[in-house]
Amino acid sequence: MDPKGHERKVYFDKKMGELQKLLLQMGGLVEESIARAVQSLKEQDLELAEAVCRDDDNIDDLESKIEEGCLTFIATQQPMAKDLRKISTLFKMVTNLERMADNAVNISQVTCRIGREPLIKPLVDIPRMTQITQRMVKDALDSYIQEDVGLAVQTIDMDDEVDQLNAQVFRELLTIMMENPRTITQATYLILVSRYLERIADHATNIAEEVIFLVTGEKHSRQ
Amino acid sequence: MDPKGHERKVYFDKKMGELQKLLLQMGGLVEESIARAVQSLKEQDLELAEAVCRDDDNIDDLESKIEEGCLTFIATQQPMAKDLRKISTLFKMVTNLERMADNAVNISQVTCRIGREPLIKPLVDIPRMTQITQRMVKDALDSYIQEDVGLAVQTIDMDDEVDQLNAQVFRELLTIMMENPRTITQATYLILVSRYLERIADHATNIAEEVIFLVTGEKHSRQ
Repeated sequence: MDPKGHERKVYFDKKMGELQKLLLQMGGLVEESIARAVQSLKEQDLELAEAVCRDDDNIDDLESKIEEGCLTFIATQQPMAKDLRKISTLFKMVTNLERMADNAVNISQVTCRIGREPLIKPLVDIPRMTQITQRMVKDALDSYIQEDVGLAVQTIDMDDEVDQLNAQVFRELLTIMMENPRTITQATYLILVSRYLERIADHATNIAEEVIFLVTGEKHSRQ
Repeated sequence: MDPKGHERKVYFDKKMGELQKLLLQMGGLVEESIARAVQSLKEQDLELAEAVCRDDDNIDDLESKIEEGCLTFIATQQPMAKDLRKISTLFKMVTNLERMADNAVNISQVTCRIGREPLIKPLVDIPRMTQITQRMVKDALDSYIQEDVGLAVQTIDMDDEVDQLNAQVFRELLTIMMENPRTITQATYLILVSRYLERIADHATNIAEEVIFLVTGEKHSRQ
């Protein structure tokens, strides 16, 4: 590699490192937001739910900051081929992360709606979905940083489990509603929560698919 | 402007024109997909629902094609400042469009689930939401092409109407379920359909917000 090419590479890696650090910071906040949203629902903690909604601004700010960073980087460094693809993937990932955070806010809004009445049943599957989903978010980001296709595939595989739990929650809550129509309002809201989690897992899956495309150049086909 | 600058500008406009043509083509397919999904539900047309799911591949293909076009354009032309922002906005918009199409697929999947039993009530608010949502998609894309902030603001304003209709559908269906628990399954699915439409409108709102940011440099704050 010629000296100028080497210099460019060092600069590229340094800048990418900075952007990736911000990405992981944003990912950490999103994971936390998901966990707190479901905790607020489980423990009927309205204050925590409101905090999740409030703190969403920090995530939005980070999104803007990372996007700006990507664009400035592209404009000033004019990266080619793989490097450009690496940045454009990051650019798309933050959109996915921001949507996940919006879904966490939606869950918190459900807490605000139904958090004053006793839960119709202890939440089991929803916290389980949350755990898997959080893991998927973390692994999807790590698979990007490490360009680890195996980890990306694992992330996508976990999505099946989330889909199954979502279907199970749906069936179970329908049964509860039919047996006791007084549960209808709350059960419907819980079905929405389960959908929001499933949607978050979908966003993590999108990221993992982008990573596979970035590394292999092949589109991952969903089952 | 120096002659070389002029040449670049002509080339930029030509390429942007091509990408925008693809964008409008994709937008047209997405609008059609939303309309057909809701029509399949309203008329309980399972074949149409299946066609919506099948045709989603064409939308995904266009998404890839536009993204590739944007990246190649950036790599070869190295546009700066406003031009780069114009392309990166387009790059983000196709993600939003693709998600809208996914929501249309979700609606069609509901048709496949409940399309064999008579509807518990004629659909009125849902088709109304659909009309507004389709209009929002069209206007959001036009606001980008024409860089029309007024039209973007109008698009965002329409989102309030969709939110209100969504809340109304939710309340109405909860009441129907409580009065007649045999409607629970279908009513729950219809609540999801209403959410999918609301989500599509949110994506159109996101696009309109991006347009405002592109043109004015200011973030539009949601009410």
